[in-house]
Amino acid sequence: MVMSRVAVLPEIRVPADRPFVLEEVEVPPLTTGAVLGRMVLAGVCGTDVHILHGKVPVRTPAVLGHENVARVEAIGGEDEIRDVTGKVVQVGDLITWLPKSCMQCYNCTILGDPSKCEKRVGYGGWVVPADQFPYLVGGFSEYVWILPGSDLVVLPPDLAPEAVVLGDALRIMVHGLERIGGLAYGDTVVVQGSGAVGLMGAILARDAGAGQVIVIGAPAARLELAREYGADAVIDITQVPATERIQRVLALTNGRGADVVFECAGVPAAVAEGLEMVRVNGKYMIAGHYGDAGTVSLNPHLINKKQITITGVWSASNRHFLRGLHLLRKIPLEKLVTHRFPLAQINEAVLAAERQETLKAVIVP
Amino acid sequence: MVMSRVAVLPEIRVPADRPFVLEEVEVPPLTTGAVLGRMVLAGVCGTDVHILHGKVPVRTPAVLGHENVARVEAIGGEDEIRDVTGKVVQVGDLITWLPKSCMQCYNCTILGDPSKCEKRVGYGGWVVPADQFPYLVGGFSEYVWILPGSDLVVLPPDLAPEAVVLGDALRIMVHGLERIGGLAYGDTVVVQGSGAVGLMGAILARDAGAGQVIVIGAPAARLELAREYGADAVIDITQVPATERIQRVLALTNGRGADVVFECAGVPAAVAEGLEMVRVNGKYMIAGHYGDAGTVSLNPHLINKKQITITGVWSASNRHFLRGLHLLRKIPLEKLVTHRFPLAQINEAVLAAERQETLKAVIVP
Amino acid sequence: MVMSRVAVLPEIRVPADRPFVLEEVEVPPLTTGAVLGRMVLAGVCGTDVHILHGKVPVRTPAVLGHENVARVEAIGGEDEIRDVTGKVVQVGDLITWLPKSCMQCYNCTILGDPSKCEKRVGYGGWVVPADQFPYLVGGFSEYVWILPGSDLVVLPPDLAPEAVVLGDALRIMVHGLERIGGLAYGDTVVVQGSGAVGLMGAILARDAGAGQVIVIGAPAARLELAREYGADAVIDITQVPATERIQRVLALTNGRGADVVFECAGVPAAVAEGLEMVRVNGKYMIAGHYGDAGTVSLNPHLINKKQITITGVWSASNRHFLRGLHLLRKIPLEKLVTHRFPLAQINEAVLAAERQETLKAVIVP
Amino acid sequence: MVMSRVAVLPEIRVPADRPFVLEEVEVPPLTTGAVLGRMVLAGVCGTDVHILHGKVPVRTPAVLGHENVARVEAIGGEDEIRDVTGKVVQVGDLITWLPKSCMQCYNCTILGDPSKCEKRVGYGGWVVPADQFPYLVGGFSEYVWILPGSDLVVLPPDLAPEAVVLGDALRIMVHGLERIGGLAYGDTVVVQGSGAVGLMGAILARDAGAGQVIVIGAPAARLELAREYGADAVIDITQVPATERIQRVLALTNGRGADVVFECAGVPAAVAEGLEMVRVNGKYMIAGHYGDAGTVSLNPHLINKKQITITGVWSASNRHFLRGLHLLRKIPLEKLVTHRFPLAQINEAVLAAERQETLKAVIVP
Repeated sequence: MVMSRVAVLPEIRVPADRPFVLEEVEVPPLTTGAVLGRMVLAGVCGTDVHILHGKVPVRTPAVLGHENVARVEAIGGEDEIRDVTGKVVQVGDLITWLPKSCMQCYNCTILGDPSKCEKRVGYGGWVVPADQFPYLVGGFSEYVWILPGSDLVVLPPDLAPEAVVLGDALRIMVHGLERIGGLAYGDTVVVQGSGAVGLMGAILARDAGAGQVIVIGAPAARLELAREYGADAVIDITQVPATERIQRVLALTNGRGADVVFECAGVPAAVAEGLEMVRVNGKYMIAGHYGDAGTVSLNPHLINKKQITITGVWSASNRHFLRGLHLLRKIPLEKLVTHRFPLAQINEAVLAAERQETLKAVIVP
Repeated sequence: MVMSRVAVLPEIRVPADRPFVLEEVEVPPLTTGAVLGRMVLAGVCGTDVHILHGKVPVRTPAVLGHENVARVEAIGGEDEIRDVTGKVVQVGDLITWLPKSCMQCYNCTILGDPSKCEKRVGYGGWVVPADQFPYLVGGFSEYVWILPGSDLVVLPPDLAPEAVVLGDALRIMVHGLERIGGLAYGDTVVVQGSGAVGLMGAILARDAGAGQVIVIGAPAARLELAREYGADAVIDITQVPATERIQRVLALTNGRGADVVFECAGVPAAVAEGLEMVRVNGKYMIAGHYGDAGTVSLNPHLINKKQITITGVWSASNRHFLRGLHLLRKIPLEKLVTHRFPLAQINEAVLAAERQETLKAVIVP
Repeated sequence: MVMSRVAVLPEIRVPADRPFVLEEVEVPPLTTGAVLGRMVLAGVCGTDVHILHGKVPVRTPAVLGHENVARVEAIGGEDEIRDVTGKVVQVGDLITWLPKSCMQCYNCTILGDPSKCEKRVGYGGWVVPADQFPYLVGGFSEYVWILPGSDLVVLPPDLAPEAVVLGDALRIMVHGLERIGGLAYGDTVVVQGSGAVGLMGAILARDAGAGQVIVIGAPAARLELAREYGADAVIDITQVPATERIQRVLALTNGRGADVVFECAGVPAAVAEGLEMVRVNGKYMIAGHYGDAGTVSLNPHLINKKQITITGVWSASNRHFLRGLHLLRKIPLEKLVTHRFPLAQINEAVLAAERQETLKAVIVP
Repeated sequence: MVMSRVAVLPEIRVPADRPFVLEEVEVPPLTTGAVLGRMVLAGVCGTDVHILHGKVPVRTPAVLGHENVARVEAIGGEDEIRDVTGKVVQVGDLITWLPKSCMQCYNCTILGDPSKCEKRVGYGGWVVPADQFPYLVGGFSEYVWILPGSDLVVLPPDLAPEAVVLGDALRIMVHGLERIGGLAYGDTVVVQGSGAVGLMGAILARDAGAGQVIVIGAPAARLELAREYGADAVIDITQVPATERIQRVLALTNGRGADVVFECAGVPAAVAEGLEMVRVNGKYMIAGHYGDAGTVSLNPHLINKKQITITGVWSASNRHFLRGLHLLRKIPLEKLVTHRFPLAQINEAVLAAERQETLKAVIVP
């Protein structure tokens, strides 16, 4: 009988000093097609903080942790199982698993967009509550019990587990890039926001042919990272007021504005500011408003006159993660993982993320 | 010596009861490549009303009138002149002429978008003031003196002059359709606004493969016209409040929302309302905010979550007018010209347009 | 116990005078989710002829017939079943059913294109052989036994069954239109081929905003139908040699060539001819080469110099059929169904199709 | 009075051992807006070889050389002149100049594609013959007399002149990338051809987000360069037969084929081979058939079944050169300039290019 330590979130209480409780539970036997993974790393995501704040609903008690890398410990049954690319999964493989789209609903079939699946389930708070079989359904745990039919990805053996955790933010930006029709070669890209999504957006833009990448955010340490990862210019929002930020972008673009702006800030006011930074016929991508952060006052005349195209992007489909793997392998992303916590310090980890002390914290069980 | 009656706007005074003064001036001799047109019809546009209100700048004294159909009376010089498609222009031809893009500026050359020409000139208030040679530079006149090198279009002889006047609104919507990547066959299209732009948008959508066209506007007579021209459903904003309008659109689309919404209302609040009407992954086109009508409160989360694409469209290029000719010939649009005024009643005509009594009024000199 | 007459193709023999044998079999009881349909109409498709010629593989013995309209006679089990749009299916409904994509393979999930499903199954020759349960798996039959989980479409009650049969050709062209990025409003479209696919392509182009539709094909009766359904010009390949056909298209397009050409002929030489008809930067769609008809000599310099875009289209996804429904309801297509045969005359029907005497023949059991 | 040495091609003779004659001519005085450039470098292009073979027409006597970098020696007249981006041109600036599109013809205005200008003029064989004023109208010369209104580009001072010469091949590929809708992030790109266009295509693909770049060509030295510049795999056509080349590409792509194939070989057979290398729904770009090299036998069924999109690309517009500048600055391209010749050895230079001994040869007057 295998036992697993696991961090459980019994309920949503706001505020909560120590939201998680560590338990030790028995690992249920595997059914056919199920996979037992021994967690290597689990990322702490901004969404986890939103969950604790009651902004993103989960079914409690919950095992959180949806940015996961595990090693396959066992596979249920005799049959081969395959990952999303058709590769056979084997004990010892390094894997991650993606939110599962049903591929049966209207959005999956008629619309053809699994990222908008009407019945999507993700590990780390959604698939089943932590008091139902198979209990170990999130990454903040020693073991994870992955349901049959999950969307597994066997990872290249040379891929750093830290990089995979960043693949969660990256796939959103790969998806966004697809939705805006890609970059034109040499585009100037402004990224609003220097969290994990923003930085991965900047790194992606750099590698997808941008001619100039400008990152706007804070604090200084993140902007420093942005520079190290290739940003040509950074603007610190704690030092430079909004009007001047717009002027700086214009100055860096011959007064014309940026070809493309990625909104990865999650702050409604950023949208009004960003639309002033886009050039005539330019593109504006809204990627940071996964949560409802309220409204902003916009002038439709500006959109009309500059012929701006604004596009929203929501999560991602499997192909976006797969396409991002290329970047995860190529560019050493370890510096972006700023904090590591053992499972026993899950409360400290999430609170550090809440205080934005971390860029990307991981739990190493 | 030929004399021409012409309506001159001496200056912008707000308010102005009788803004135009009728004069009689001598027609200047033609220089090489210039064209003398005898006006057949000139449309009164919403933009003319904005000019009188000081919202759209012109150089006074001005001859307004930019939706023009004329018959070629004479051509300056000995050389052949050609229209924008390469057709030789001849005395007796029915013609119109389009705003002239410079084809030399950054937007014309590098951006490749003449509709955003940085030095665009249009007849009817912009090309030269009415006290400078050649004086007769707008459509509210008996004769028009068209400068050498203008972008002429020789019209098909079977085309009703009334239809051409509506081509000014139509070309914007043809451009908009191009910018949003066209309709997918069978799309449900909602049109917000039942002015000339909105109705031409609805007629265009119908003819470009829409499966369902819903027009939202007022007054009832315009909505009745929308129905006659093929709208499947109309919603009267004077009878149905905004929340219910959204519910009706959802009810007409299996609760999913419209594939595409055209904003042709010019009212900022319409944008917030319209975004609620768009389906997941749907498209929203902003065509009605040529003038600055102020701001509206929007929630970026809605754009993000529904993955909406919003696109602004500004004026049009020559090809959009040419592509619209097909519709102008096919669909009898005379009913949309609700009022006809002689040149002497130009003040009455513009005031009727200001009071929105007309859908499309024309001046018949 | 219900009995059903059914036409069975015992094996592929080439040539075959009377390929089908009529049998009478017992209708198997319905399992949960299965649907028993009483056939209203089944179309005879060019693909059926290819099957008889051994050009398209099926599993014999086979019940052919994949363009089907049936009325729901019974539904297996107690649970509600739903069609592809989410509508509950009820006894008495008029239905059709589409090729079933697995939604699990690489092409369905990662590529996101169910029309290229690696495990697609269609009724009428593919799903199971006719000597395996449930036997009645094609449209050339009195009853059809539709497997649980099939992609049903509940048809609007006002839709003529004949129109639905044409929906099979139409959905390919709706798909093709999507793949080429739609028409630009007012495009001149040349359609090569006047079979069911070609004529539906012409009708679709007309309704999707084409400014001019030119159909090239034979025999004269089909071209006459093309005209009745809105083609502006037709060219009879039995009367006009290839070089002159090209000249005619150029003459109809100011010497510039067509904006878009649809290849629906299935003849390799048509591709070389059609590329000469496309304008600079124009589009060429290959829709007629579902079967392998051999090679053609092409000059890459022509594609390079005119910057032509060539796009292949293969079958269709569910959404393309659904989008085509709009056309099927709007335009009376009965004239295109030129022949009706009782089930007992299935051999005559298919042989008439083979001799191209029919445009669209249907079996009315 | 300034004198200039210049290489003149008196007439087309095939074959020609020493096609060029060196002359010394007087530099004509500058007219207003003209620019006198002192040549820094001129590239020898494959097109120059085609010209000598009579495959690409020029007006003889001709001064060839269209890949030019010069330093501004003098500017005619008092007025400021500006480059295509609006920058003022000054004596001492390093410049290049692009083929001049008229911006007045149908293709420039209505089609909106200056790369297909109907009246395009380029230096180096086309603008005027060498016996007409201003004589010095090509790059194989000590001085070049650039006509008023030419499309100048002031180059960044840190840009290596060698890199600019490669910008001529690069801009075609930037244009091609635009025409195919860009790369999807992580695409596998196969490049057929390892001449200047092919190598610049591979380098561009690498920098525009390709996940894997495979170059197919010869001789070995060029493939070695391809590897140095980032190709993941190379296939030597002198060592590996066509069928095996296809198999290798499939092996490198999990048996699925490449997402995108760039044809830069100029050999018709490459098209048939390349279409076998493209995956389902993949893209094939034809960039290498600027000249007419004859036909190839293709099977339309393959295009149909795999739903391939084939796109031709012809030359480029100014924006494509400008967007490529980013790459020219970022990546040190000097290794690609394999040969340097003084002007006096122009015959040797062109003959070396004809024998494909050079990848890129330049004339350094």
